[in-house]
Amino acid sequence: MTRDLWLIGIGTGSPAHVTLEGMAALHDAAVVLLPLKGEDKEALADLRRAILDASGTKATVIPFDYPVRDESLPYATRVDAWHDEIARRWQAAMDGAPEGPVALLVWGDPSLYDSTLRIAGRLLPAPRIRVVPGITSIQALTAAHAIPLNTVNGPVTVTTGRRLRDHGWPEGAETLVVMLDGECSFRALAPDGVTIWWGAYLGSPDQILDHGPLAEAGPRIEATRAEARARHGWIMDTYLLRRG
Amino acid sequence: MTRDLWLIGIGTGSPAHVTLEGMAALHDAAVVLLPLKGEDKEALADLRRAILDASGTKATVIPFDYPVRDESLPYATRVDAWHDEIARRWQAAMDGAPEGPVALLVWGDPSLYDSTLRIAGRLLPAPRIRVVPGITSIQALTAAHAIPLNTVNGPVTVTTGRRLRDHGWPEGAETLVVMLDGECSFRALAPDGVTIWWGAYLGSPDQILDHGPLAEAGPRIEATRAEARARHGWIMDTYLLRRG
Repeated sequence: MTRDLWLIGIGTGSPAHVTLEGMAALHDAAVVLLPLKGEDKEALADLRRAILDASGTKATVIPFDYPVRDESLPYATRVDAWHDEIARRWQAAMDGAPEGPVALLVWGDPSLYDSTLRIAGRLLPAPRIRVVPGITSIQALTAAHAIPLNTVNGPVTVTTGRRLRDHGWPEGAETLVVMLDGECSFRALAPDGVTIWWGAYLGSPDQILDHGPLAEAGPRIEATRAEARARHGWIMDTYLLRRG
Repeated sequence: MTRDLWLIGIGTGSPAHVTLEGMAALHDAAVVLLPLKGEDKEALADLRRAILDASGTKATVIPFDYPVRDESLPYATRVDAWHDEIARRWQAAMDGAPEGPVALLVWGDPSLYDSTLRIAGRLLPAPRIRVVPGITSIQALTAAHAIPLNTVNGPVTVTTGRRLRDHGWPEGAETLVVMLDGECSFRALAPDGVTIWWGAYLGSPDQILDHGPLAEAGPRIEATRAEARARHGWIMDTYLLRRG
């Protein structure tokens, strides 16, 4: 029998980011698969539980342990093997689960720098997939700073910390959003004429914001980030760079 | 006295796109400014009213007429003059309004190809601005197709139909999202190796989707778009292109 698999975007740090559609989907799900990622992100686990509670769902919650990435493998192989293993764990969890729609809570939006859709593509038999969009960290960042993402008729490039380090400022880009950056990769850029808007723990009560010319704000953000990460035990952050 | 001005993202075509934060903000607003844009988009006006009703707001709703753009002016000047005029109309509407937070409903997200923040920046005295993020048409598009926006570690460029026509495929771009395109500007591209995912009236019961190799799907989408636009009297659509 074909399973219904619902990938539900839950935003970035606040239950209030969830849409009415997201809340209704959680409410109507028969099963929720809940990854356990270790103790360092307890705040995130609490937030997921708060969202489930708010939805009033009666779904059977099935926790599963998240595998660890094999850091000895090259990047692409490592990601592939990791996704294979996560798919096996989903499959195992679903095999014993009650009938009905299975839901997964996805930080941000399932379409943006998230593996859930690619992992779901590995399941056999293939489930019927429904995606419920959620607020991304990009939107939480621009909302918190009350700034537009783009200039008038201007393009926006979304990229990763890894790409910024490997390839520098992308040709022709005016506005750059950097995701998945654990290394303050903006340090690799010539800061002249670049403004940065940065945010961490976006949407949550712990939210931190900073912005300014990259030359001045960059080192300040590095220090703030290191301090906050040490204090919380983890950090999720993102930033926007604009040239000219 | 400083006014609170809340710019509330309401998603693309479904009241269910609104977040809990968006609904609460509408509920708590004292005033809602409601643009009247003519009869051709009656479906959108109905949707806005449905969202206001669902929020249970008791806000005073103040309609105002949207100005017409002076098409004889060059693009940048025309947009600037238009924003000035909209700001004047907001100001006039707010001057007579009850005290308390003033809300504006914004399609999609106030940060993405939307003028609301720029218009708000023209108000004097400057209001205290709060942005509530909403689901963008990009997210509604990828959710409807159940596809990721980016490839693994891949960049994404968001651009406009106008830029695509003027500058062609952006240097180094792999995934391209095209917004504000009333002219099927994908026709300007060499279609070889490009796949398109297109959607119109996203999130609404009238949603139309198509996808495939640009060479085949492009002409089909052009025809579908023209037919749907004639039937509805208006169209809102967006698309994603991926190379390789």
